[in-house]
Amino acid sequence: MRKMAVRLRSRPIGRPRAGDWDICEEAVIGPADGEVLVAVRYVSVSPSIRTQMEAGGAYLPPLALGDVARARGVGEVLESRTADFAPGDHVEGLLGTQSHFTGPATGMMKIDPELAPIERYLGALGMTGFTAYFGMLDIGRPTPGETVVVSAAAGAVGSIAGQVAGLKGCRVIGIAGGTDKCAHVVAELGFDACIDHLDDSIGERLSEAAPRGVDIYFDNVGGRVLDEVLLHLAPRARIPLCGGIAHYNSVGSLGLRNHLKLLETRGRMEGFSVYDYTARHAEARDALAGWLADGSIVTREHIEDGLERFPDALQLLFGGGQLGKLMVRV
Amino acid sequence: MRKMAVRLRSRPIGRPRAGDWDICEEAVIGPADGEVLVAVRYVSVSPSIRTQMEAGGAYLPPLALGDVARARGVGEVLESRTADFAPGDHVEGLLGTQSHFTGPATGMMKIDPELAPIERYLGALGMTGFTAYFGMLDIGRPTPGETVVVSAAAGAVGSIAGQVAGLKGCRVIGIAGGTDKCAHVVAELGFDACIDHLDDSIGERLSEAAPRGVDIYFDNVGGRVLDEVLLHLAPRARIPLCGGIAHYNSVGSLGLRNHLKLLETRGRMEGFSVYDYTARHAEARDALAGWLADGSIVTREHIEDGLERFPDALQLLFGGGQLGKLMVRV
Repeated sequence: MRKMAVRLRSRPIGRPRAGDWDICEEAVIGPADGEVLVAVRYVSVSPSIRTQMEAGGAYLPPLALGDVARARGVGEVLESRTADFAPGDHVEGLLGTQSHFTGPATGMMKIDPELAPIERYLGALGMTGFTAYFGMLDIGRPTPGETVVVSAAAGAVGSIAGQVAGLKGCRVIGIAGGTDKCAHVVAELGFDACIDHLDDSIGERLSEAAPRGVDIYFDNVGGRVLDEVLLHLAPRARIPLCGGIAHYNSVGSLGLRNHLKLLETRGRMEGFSVYDYTARHAEARDALAGWLADGSIVTREHIEDGLERFPDALQLLFGGGQLGKLMVRV
Repeated sequence: MRKMAVRLRSRPIGRPRAGDWDICEEAVIGPADGEVLVAVRYVSVSPSIRTQMEAGGAYLPPLALGDVARARGVGEVLESRTADFAPGDHVEGLLGTQSHFTGPATGMMKIDPELAPIERYLGALGMTGFTAYFGMLDIGRPTPGETVVVSAAAGAVGSIAGQVAGLKGCRVIGIAGGTDKCAHVVAELGFDACIDHLDDSIGERLSEAAPRGVDIYFDNVGGRVLDEVLLHLAPRARIPLCGGIAHYNSVGSLGLRNHLKLLETRGRMEGFSVYDYTARHAEARDALAGWLADGSIVTREHIEDGLERFPDALQLLFGGGQLGKLMVRV
């Protein structure tokens, strides 16, 4: 049996290029004792890929040249040499940028294709949704009547984070790039307002939309947006740091000039990782599944067809060309 | 009766100059109903003065030209038209940069000159000590065996914050400017090490002194020191933001480049204000008084003689020329 794999060819300077990857055809290896062979159906395309492409200093261990990227995926077990999984089981895990995964089943989770389409387990019902859930609820700690700002509001995590805050009784303002995205954020996701960072003055629009200041800023981007929101913090504001996409591709440095506003407002800026909440993933999944089922939140996947589209999909991600969770169908 | 007052003459650009202040001789006004007249004995010289000198945007309301600065002081009640205070009482409060205070007794606190010299209530037994206490214990939350870094370690707040962390079983590393200060921090204050930011490479010295990373960084300065310490954070590090003296006098901006380390380490950077802990000031005073009495912590005041020395003392403060709590004796 043959498989397709996307392997790192070269390390990018600045934004990744399609040519940074090789599309390889190779033999499928059968599972050893304790391992499984999984036919991958969908591969997640997320900003964390970018941090793996660096030679060092990133917060995920770097890929070696020639490695498949550590991407999450969902698929079906074809062969199993562990008691935990049987052929026909559907699983979610770090399956990599490849059509077939062979290896230990560590960290792999069974998913139920009856409950939701399997691709949703890469989005709202997977790490994407859990990140939004824990970042907003545990780090942000919204209370009714507060004002919440979410950047990358049309994106996979931001779209859910904002809706979760809305369910907690907050006024929710998105920040997104472009009129279409902003319209989507307000009309479909139900945010109270959305600021177009490509067109609007973020500062002026925040003054209008959040006259009493920002209680929670769920930060997916870092950079100048973070710097601007810092100027609009309400007392005791919280900033869950979820991502810094503006920095990942930046060759020079984007200095943060307004962090002292945290002192002035007694604010808190805090990084978090969904992997610190493993013991509570089931809680998040149950809550999110409930909200999806009763229509309290809506979610969107952007699916590109074919694993060979992975390098282009990554371009799309950093160009901001998608709505919701981006993935490729194998 | 005549009094002396130090009044703002002009707003500085960059570091304050002695000429930014007028030394005025003027009439003492008697207290109205509900007010007290206090003979001020010591006036605190603290970095917060600088933020009042700005026309806007500072986190304390700006002074008008001609105002006395809002400085804390200790003194003796000469006349009282409120039941709460009697002539002869010693008090601590926002008495301003003047030899006599006339006004409402709001927020004034009786102090006991038998328990400690009254100037100590501007230092370890006053807002200075309370800031160190709550910043380190409530925001930093040290646990035994952790590594704690404190900047401005020879200063009023830093010297106490570091010693409090030491009492909690932490390894404490100071950062201070100059060999003399560093020697003082280690030999007299009992820190485990001290990095001279004027001479040493902070990064290299942190790698040596904190090989497993920094669990708490008590930040009194901001600027490049904060940026460097961010690169050395241990997982789940806490950064109580106590001051940004590097920024107060800065005309341009000092961008923070490494804040994304908070994401990588799931760290927390948090501003706080001692004024949010009013209900617990007695707790802090009792704890600090106990530690001072049994020699667990030591403290130092740097006293300049004469209220007319206030403008020069402020220069000294921003030049880093003092050890411990800086004040002027009236």
